[in-house]
Amino acid sequence: MNDLFLRACRGEKTSPVPVWLMRQAGRYLPAYQEVRGRTDFLTLCRTPELAAKVTLQPVDILGVDAAILFSDILIPLVPMGANLSFHEGRGPVLDPPVRSEADLDKLHPIDPVSDVSFVLETIRILREELKDRVPLIGFSGAPFTLATYLIEGGTSKSFVNIKRMLFESPALYHRLMDLITDVTLSYLKAQIEAGAQAVQVFDTWAGILSVKDYEKCALPYAARILEALEGLGVPRIYFVFDGGHVLESIKKSGADVIGLDWRTGIDQALLKLGSTVVQGNLDPCTLFLPEDQLRLRVQDILEQGRNARAHIFNLGHGILPEIPADKAKLLVKLVHELSA
Amino acid sequence: MNDLFLRACRGEKTSPVPVWLMRQAGRYLPAYQEVRGRTDFLTLCRTPELAAKVTLQPVDILGVDAAILFSDILIPLVPMGANLSFHEGRGPVLDPPVRSEADLDKLHPIDPVSDVSFVLETIRILREELKDRVPLIGFSGAPFTLATYLIEGGTSKSFVNIKRMLFESPALYHRLMDLITDVTLSYLKAQIEAGAQAVQVFDTWAGILSVKDYEKCALPYAARILEALEGLGVPRIYFVFDGGHVLESIKKSGADVIGLDWRTGIDQALLKLGSTVVQGNLDPCTLFLPEDQLRLRVQDILEQGRNARAHIFNLGHGILPEIPADKAKLLVKLVHELSA
Repeated sequence: MNDLFLRACRGEKTSPVPVWLMRQAGRYLPAYQEVRGRTDFLTLCRTPELAAKVTLQPVDILGVDAAILFSDILIPLVPMGANLSFHEGRGPVLDPPVRSEADLDKLHPIDPVSDVSFVLETIRILREELKDRVPLIGFSGAPFTLATYLIEGGTSKSFVNIKRMLFESPALYHRLMDLITDVTLSYLKAQIEAGAQAVQVFDTWAGILSVKDYEKCALPYAARILEALEGLGVPRIYFVFDGGHVLESIKKSGADVIGLDWRTGIDQALLKLGSTVVQGNLDPCTLFLPEDQLRLRVQDILEQGRNARAHIFNLGHGILPEIPADKAKLLVKLVHELSA
Repeated sequence: MNDLFLRACRGEKTSPVPVWLMRQAGRYLPAYQEVRGRTDFLTLCRTPELAAKVTLQPVDILGVDAAILFSDILIPLVPMGANLSFHEGRGPVLDPPVRSEADLDKLHPIDPVSDVSFVLETIRILREELKDRVPLIGFSGAPFTLATYLIEGGTSKSFVNIKRMLFESPALYHRLMDLITDVTLSYLKAQIEAGAQAVQVFDTWAGILSVKDYEKCALPYAARILEALEGLGVPRIYFVFDGGHVLESIKKSGADVIGLDWRTGIDQALLKLGSTVVQGNLDPCTLFLPEDQLRLRVQDILEQGRNARAHIFNLGHGILPEIPADKAKLLVKLVHELSA
């Protein structure tokens, strides 16, 4: 098996550097569009054969060094009792949102084996199909990020509702976070039991918090999950989007690998993180650059990555539908060539 | 006149510390709602008597140490040739967006005296009415931030269109930025001539860029404006929202005062900024905290502010419509009391 990714996760400097792309199974790939054109997003997530199929596409087409389960971070919220729907161009909607004790009382723990069996079945199919190729990454949202969706009722610009709850009703907020943390932990454990060989915890919105509030309201819950998964033999990646200001706190999360967005350079991040394995951090939009300039950007990131304990190349955020698939393919080739 | 704000801008440590709030004339104030209920947003901006009236409300109601012109950063884009409209709950729309040479060719410089006379008239009314009270701040968007609206056609989540332009068509991008910079500079000069006693340049979206791209694509244009306004006797404030990672670059902007959002603490920011005047940086949502906890937050920020050359207290972003007006009033009182 191509174990570059797993070796790097464990702190080994590899040659070449492994590369995968967040949202690598997605709309920028015509092959994905073809599947997605015949089914809606949630059905695609819930149909193991189709979810496995699109998970494999970037492995075949781009030659990435890891596959990541095709799913959505909001999936486990549904069996918790949330009413989730997706609307084209508007993103996810959770209606009604969670704003009160009464709203929270309607939510409950989940049993992943019965409640999200389709995810576990997707993982089993993928392990079977990937056997001798690349490792499979499972994932979840981090509790704070999942809470933003539940409390805001979807995405948000100001995140005023979750902040209002954490400032006005901290007991309610922490009760909700405890529940989400338990759900997320059982969800990730089930993914690992089904065959996920690494897990990534996405804290997409924790960067909206000040350092103090991140340390009190987001980090402890992510860390509880990461710590509980320690010793299972599966590397744990923690990614806070727009989290440059909380890197010193992130260091305490207990993760094996720290994901970085493109804002803060790896060299700058390492000043705060110390010796660690980092994953990142090319701005997805730089894939619009002509090849010679893209090459320089990749080279620069690889050079900075050499100063880390080990480096996994990735984008600093999910790849966008507007990116030409050929450029994503070129990126993978460049990373492999330039780090060989 | 209460000149606390202007003295702090010039680097004098004051007692008490001056305070004003970004978007202090806004929907959280019932008195504003009353005016706004009778007119649409753009008409309010364009009617000097009404714009002056809502500008004065927070001075009367909250007791802030500076007034800021009621307007919108997108106002000068209209006489440039952009088609701007506001839609409730959707934010500003600029249709068609600027994506090509042909789109750019339709835009042109402005003559503020004839094209935005209502802004200048608002300033003249305000100086007359404020005479012996507090100074008046004028403002504009920074070129990068204005370009995001023109190119994206409104607000954006991924800012893929502006990044695509700056990576794929840099000549077009820089031509557009040159034009916006000229317009913004003439707009701010006209505000100063009409009586603005300080100016703030808002770079709300520049924080989406990596350090390298910020230094190449956003900072030079903001700096060109800030430098051209030097020596006019009017302090210049530069505020990059979510700009913790570019503070070392911001230091080179030439601004007299650096605005900070709430993510990065003032102490942390000063490590990168050196000795400078800072403005900020309370998370607007902390106004939901009970008084005793809000007091601790204010105290903490004031203590950190003492390490700056001088400090102007402000929120880290605009106040939100959901904030109770009484809490904003309490905040101003706390800042004055705790820094006296």
